[in-house]
Amino acid sequence: MRKFLTVALTLLALPAFMLPAFARPVTTYKLDNGLEVVVIEDHRAPVVVHMVWYRIGSADEPRGHSGIAHFFEHLMFQGTKSVAPGALSKIVAAQGGSDNAFTTQDYTAYFQRVAADRLDLVMGLEADRMVNLNLTVKDVETEREVILDERNQRTDSDPGSLLQEQMGAAQYLNHPYGTPVIGWRSEIAGLTREDALAFYRANYAPNNAILVVAGDVTPADVLALAQKNYGPIKPSDAITPRIRAAEPPQLAPRRLVMEDARVAQPYVVRTYLVPERNPGDQKQAAALTILAELLGGNPSTSVLARALMFDKPVATYVSANYDGVSLDPTTFGLVVVPAAGVGLEDAEKAMDATLAEFLKKGVDQAEFDRIQAQLRAKQVYDEDNTQGAAHRYGMALASGLTVQDVQDWPGVLTSVTPADVMAAAALLDARHSVTGWLQEEKAQ
Amino acid sequence: MRKFLTVALTLLALPAFMLPAFARPVTTYKLDNGLEVVVIEDHRAPVVVHMVWYRIGSADEPRGHSGIAHFFEHLMFQGTKSVAPGALSKIVAAQGGSDNAFTTQDYTAYFQRVAADRLDLVMGLEADRMVNLNLTVKDVETEREVILDERNQRTDSDPGSLLQEQMGAAQYLNHPYGTPVIGWRSEIAGLTREDALAFYRANYAPNNAILVVAGDVTPADVLALAQKNYGPIKPSDAITPRIRAAEPPQLAPRRLVMEDARVAQPYVVRTYLVPERNPGDQKQAAALTILAELLGGNPSTSVLARALMFDKPVATYVSANYDGVSLDPTTFGLVVVPAAGVGLEDAEKAMDATLAEFLKKGVDQAEFDRIQAQLRAKQVYDEDNTQGAAHRYGMALASGLTVQDVQDWPGVLTSVTPADVMAAAALLDARHSVTGWLQEEKAQ
Repeated sequence: MRKFLTVALTLLALPAFMLPAFARPVTTYKLDNGLEVVVIEDHRAPVVVHMVWYRIGSADEPRGHSGIAHFFEHLMFQGTKSVAPGALSKIVAAQGGSDNAFTTQDYTAYFQRVAADRLDLVMGLEADRMVNLNLTVKDVETEREVILDERNQRTDSDPGSLLQEQMGAAQYLNHPYGTPVIGWRSEIAGLTREDALAFYRANYAPNNAILVVAGDVTPADVLALAQKNYGPIKPSDAITPRIRAAEPPQLAPRRLVMEDARVAQPYVVRTYLVPERNPGDQKQAAALTILAELLGGNPSTSVLARALMFDKPVATYVSANYDGVSLDPTTFGLVVVPAAGVGLEDAEKAMDATLAEFLKKGVDQAEFDRIQAQLRAKQVYDEDNTQGAAHRYGMALASGLTVQDVQDWPGVLTSVTPADVMAAAALLDARHSVTGWLQEEKAQ
Repeated sequence: MRKFLTVALTLLALPAFMLPAFARPVTTYKLDNGLEVVVIEDHRAPVVVHMVWYRIGSADEPRGHSGIAHFFEHLMFQGTKSVAPGALSKIVAAQGGSDNAFTTQDYTAYFQRVAADRLDLVMGLEADRMVNLNLTVKDVETEREVILDERNQRTDSDPGSLLQEQMGAAQYLNHPYGTPVIGWRSEIAGLTREDALAFYRANYAPNNAILVVAGDVTPADVLALAQKNYGPIKPSDAITPRIRAAEPPQLAPRRLVMEDARVAQPYVVRTYLVPERNPGDQKQAAALTILAELLGGNPSTSVLARALMFDKPVATYVSANYDGVSLDPTTFGLVVVPAAGVGLEDAEKAMDATLAEFLKKGVDQAEFDRIQAQLRAKQVYDEDNTQGAAHRYGMALASGLTVQDVQDWPGVLTSVTPADVMAAAALLDARHSVTGWLQEEKAQ
C-alpha cells in the first residue's frame, strides 16, 4: 500500500496546471442517501477508475487528535466481516488492477483502477468498508507503529519537512491548516481504537462522500451499480457543515530560522496567505496561478529565474507555487536555493528586490502570452488523462467547488489579463507572510 | 462590572511573587457533589472574601469558539429566576460589599467581599447562578456588543496588545494557549445563545469548581453554609479531564515585526516556552521565578538594568517576567525599551549579549542573597493580605496545583541555589523563542 501525504507547502515541486477535460462527457447524480456521483466517460480503453472521496481531511480533525484522518485511511485497509485484513488490495491486484488512497488537509480518497467489467467488484469492496470496517486494538497498535515510522522517515529525518511543519504552524494563527497532515508525533502516539471508531462513525457515510467513476462506462450502468452497492447504506445525521476556525487578521511578518546538522543545501522559503478557488469566484485564484507561473514556473524564463540565476548568479534553483484547490485560504510559496558562496540573507534580499521590480515594471507581455499558450496546450494534454480528470473532479468537489467550477476553470484561466495578475501580486502582503531559512547548524 | 483579562504575556508589568500565607489556618473539604472547599481563617476584621473558581478557561474552549469562556463570565451577571439581570452586583453593593469576576487561560472566577455575616447571602447568589442562569437571545446579543467594544478598546486599538496576540499565536504551534483570552474578533462575533448554553452545561457544575472562603469565619460554619447552598446542586457527568493538545518540539526561533502608525515607543519582546509549576515538582519553576527577578526584577540592580540602562545607555526600561501558575507550559518574557536614538536591532543585540554574559559569569551572590531576603520579607507582607491568600489558593487549585504545593512554595523558593538558577537559565533555548519588534510603520 502506497500512501500520499499532501501538505500545505509543496516545496521544490513544479506547479502543475490542473485543467479539466471539459470536452469529455461528465454526468452527475445524487443518490437518495446523499452520495454524489460523477461519471466521466472515456471509451478509448476498456478500463475504469473508481474513486470515493470523503469530505474529511486533517483540517477537520478534533483538536489534540492530529493525524487521525491519515491514520484512519491506513486503517481502512484492515478488513471487514467479508474481506480479510489487507485482502482488498490483493483482490484488486489479482484482477489485474491497482489501488491506492491518500489524505490531505481537505479530503481522504480511495481509488482502484481495474478493467471496466470489474467495476461492480470494486464498488462492492469500497461500499463494504464504508460501513463494515473491523478494527481490533491490535490492528490499531500495529498501524500506529507503521505511521510513527512513516513520520520518522518522511518528516523527522528531513530538516526541510520539519521546517515546512514549523512554518505551517507559524503561517496559520488559528485555522487548522497549521497542523501537519501526518499529525504531531505525540498526538499520533496517543490515538486509540476508540478514537478511530469515533472518527469513522462521525465522518464515513454516503452523505459525506463523492463517487467518481471515469473510463469505459455509461452513466446509466454506473448509476445502476452505485444504487446496488452504495444505495442501501443509510446516511448519517452526524455530518455537519465544514465550518472551520477562521484566521484572525495577520498583522506581522513572521520569520523562522531552522538550523540542523543534516542540512547539506541551505535555502529560503517564503509563504503568503492568499485566497483559494471559491465556487463561482475563481478569478483571483486563476490570476495567482498565472502569477506563480510567471514568477517561478519556467526554469529559464521565469521572472525569478532570469533575475537570480542568469542576470546575477545568486541562485541555483528558484520556484513559485500556488494550488488554489483548497477549502479555505491557502499559501503562495517562493523558494530560492542560493548559489555556492551566497548567503541566505543575500538570496532573500535578491528575491525581494526582484519582486519589488516586478511590481513596478509589470507583466512582460511576451512571457504572459507564452504562458497563456502553454495553458491551452496543457488542456489538450490533460484531456488525454482519464485518471487525472477523475482526480480533478474529485478533489475539486471534496474542496467545496462544483462540477461547473471545474468546467469553468480553463475559461477563467484564459480570461485572466496582465492587470489581473498585477492585482494578484499585490495580495503578496508581507504581513501575511512567513519566511523560513534552512541552514546548517552552526558549531556551538 | 469590572472584568480582568489575563493574557499569556504580561508586558511591562513587574513580576510579583505570590507567596502563600502559610501560617494562617487553612482547612479543606470536598462536598459529596465534588465541590472543593478551602477555608482560610483571618479574624482580624469582620469581613469575608467568597470566591468560586471554575476549572474552565480560554484554553479549554471548543475550537472556533474562542472568547466564549470570557464571554460567558459576562453572561453570568444576566440573572436567574430569582435574581433580575444585573441585580447581583447591586445586591452585594447594597450590603456594603463589592464583587468581581475574571477569566484567564486556565480558569474563570467570581468573587464577592462582604461583611462576614453576609456570607450566606453571597453563597446563595453564587450557587443560584451556577445552575439557574437565564439567557435570552437579546442578552447574548447585547453582551456580545459590549465584548466586541472591550476588544476594540483593549486590543485592537493598542499595537502592543496586537503584537502580544500575534506573538502568542506564533509561540504555541499546537497548544490552545496560542489563542487570546478575549477571543479572535470574528469568533466572538459568531457566538450565539446556543453556544453559551452548551458551554454552561458542559462546564459549570460543583464538580468543576473550587470554593474559597477567606476571612472572619470558622471552617465548621463555612462547611455548613456550603452544604446548605451548594450541597443540593447535582454534579455533572460532562466534566472530563483537562487534557489539552500538547506542543510538538519547537525547532526554530520565530521572529515577528509589527509595524503600526500608532506606535510612539518601539520595543523588543522575547518570550521562551518554559515549564510551569507542577504538583510536587516546583523546583524548576522556583528557579525560573528567581531568574526573572535577577535578570529584570529590580529596576536599578537587575542584570539587564545594570547592563542596558547604566553601564551602557541602551535602554530606558527593561524587564523579565515569569509566572509559574499555569496548567501547561508557559512563557518566560523579556522586554527592552530602547533609549532614544537606539534601534531595535542594537537593543536586541545588547539584550542577547547580556544574557550570554550572564550564562558565562553566573549569578552574582550578593544580588542573589538580596533577592532571597526580599522573598522572606514579601512572605511577611503577603501574610497580611487575606484576599491575596484566597486568590493564591484559588488560582493554584484551578491550575492543577494542590494546597500542599501552595504551602510548599515559599520553602521551594528559598531552597533554590545559584546553580539551580543557572540550570533554569539554560532553559531559555532560542529554538523555543519568539522575538517581537514593535515599531512605527515606515512611510510607504
